[in-house]
Amino acid sequence: MSDSRPIGVFDSGIGGLTVVKALQEILPNEEIFYLGDTARVPYGNKSAETVERYSLELAGMLIREKAKVIVVACNTVSSVSIPKLRASVSVPVIGVIEPGAQAAVAITRNRHIGVIGTRATIRSGAYENALRALNVHVQVSSQPCPLLVPLIEEGLLNDKLTDQAIARYLGPIISNGIDTLVLGCTHYPLLAPAIGRALGSDIKLVDSARNCAVAVRNLLDRQSLRAASSAKGKLQVALTDSADNFLNVARDALNLDIGDVELRTLS
Amino acid sequence: MSDSRPIGVFDSGIGGLTVVKALQEILPNEEIFYLGDTARVPYGNKSAETVERYSLELAGMLIREKAKVIVVACNTVSSVSIPKLRASVSVPVIGVIEPGAQAAVAITRNRHIGVIGTRATIRSGAYENALRALNVHVQVSSQPCPLLVPLIEEGLLNDKLTDQAIARYLGPIISNGIDTLVLGCTHYPLLAPAIGRALGSDIKLVDSARNCAVAVRNLLDRQSLRAASSAKGKLQVALTDSADNFLNVARDALNLDIGDVELRTLS
Repeated sequence: MSDSRPIGVFDSGIGGLTVVKALQEILPNEEIFYLGDTARVPYGNKSAETVERYSLELAGMLIREKAKVIVVACNTVSSVSIPKLRASVSVPVIGVIEPGAQAAVAITRNRHIGVIGTRATIRSGAYENALRALNVHVQVSSQPCPLLVPLIEEGLLNDKLTDQAIARYLGPIISNGIDTLVLGCTHYPLLAPAIGRALGSDIKLVDSARNCAVAVRNLLDRQSLRAASSAKGKLQVALTDSADNFLNVARDALNLDIGDVELRTLS
Repeated sequence: MSDSRPIGVFDSGIGGLTVVKALQEILPNEEIFYLGDTARVPYGNKSAETVERYSLELAGMLIREKAKVIVVACNTVSSVSIPKLRASVSVPVIGVIEPGAQAAVAITRNRHIGVIGTRATIRSGAYENALRALNVHVQVSSQPCPLLVPLIEEGLLNDKLTDQAIARYLGPIISNGIDTLVLGCTHYPLLAPAIGRALGSDIKLVDSARNCAVAVRNLLDRQSLRAASSAKGKLQVALTDSADNFLNVARDALNLDIGDVELRTLS
């Protein structure tokens, strides 16, 4: 039995393409429909109510594309909107927080885990809650890193300015004694080399994009929703505003094959 | 004759409060209604069509507040939406570009003017067109500075990171030989000290917020729209999403007296 409907993925903008990349590597036969809300990006400094309202709209658009599962490729949305999304759509919804938290708890040795993300994600306490739900003895050091998204979107992936911002943000939580760091924003895998340099070899990185893709594969297997193994995977990208510079940055850094980008105007 | 209706001011977010500050200094008797679209901020990397659509919505909201004039306290909006706004509302509309261009042409000695702003403002060529319309012999060196808004919104007004970003952006246009620099983004007056340090004393700064306020005063005088000189000016602030950290940064840096902030949900 196979299911040829697309995996629906949405994000506040372009950053969620790191999840698409991870999905393509793990699920090469799947069709992916990606929707990025570039007309209202970024969500990271916006209120929970506003983020929830936007994400319900985007999920509705993916349902109209016949998505068989909805992947929330955005930590900010995952941290505040998953319960409302699950209540409002009839297909499974997978976010990035739970899978990242599970991977971090499996990796840590000293039970001290760092989490970095946008202001909204960190303020929500979503990672802290998810980590503690898995292991009450885990200690969590969180740090909002609001400048990293703009630096990434400018393509400054290997740049002195970015290295300085990373050093400033990570210094305190490294001193706290973490042995594992969760990249709690789907933009951040693009900075994995720079963040790795700042951390040194003793601290392990947990990439929430990759762990989310693994969770999607497990779900498709459990519910017999995989595409036929003979199917040729494909990617369709739709944005709510014309793409800016960052689409080129992401495409190049992730080596993604993106065809024509559709424009979907929000009502 | 006097007119007690408010001056309506709108911006993509909080940055336009620099224009409010300048208006208060020049027009202390006026009531000001400020509307910031924090639910969709920033506009600087969005398309002209989307920025135009958003700005028509915001202007409509100000008209319902009985604004006697609409001040577009945002360079990105001013650079793309002024003609459509003027065609669609019945009160005068003043942007920040024309007044800034007039001041720059009056100040320059060597007729070589620099302009910094968001990607959308610079891409629009609006300053270049306005400057050339005033003096065909003017040479313009433009530079988009996309990282300055996030740095300002983080409150890093006097910070090594910000100084480095400024040096990187301004280096090339200083070398080009400008003698005047237009701050073509209403956020940038908050960086006037840092930008001044980078420029040295030979290059003059043109603050588009201040010049916009002067243009508003001249318009009110011409059309007999000033409030009574006995009136006590007041400021009302409404935002389309709950205020984040940057409202505090702006309030402190500008020494503004902001009471309760209203929330206006977009339809």
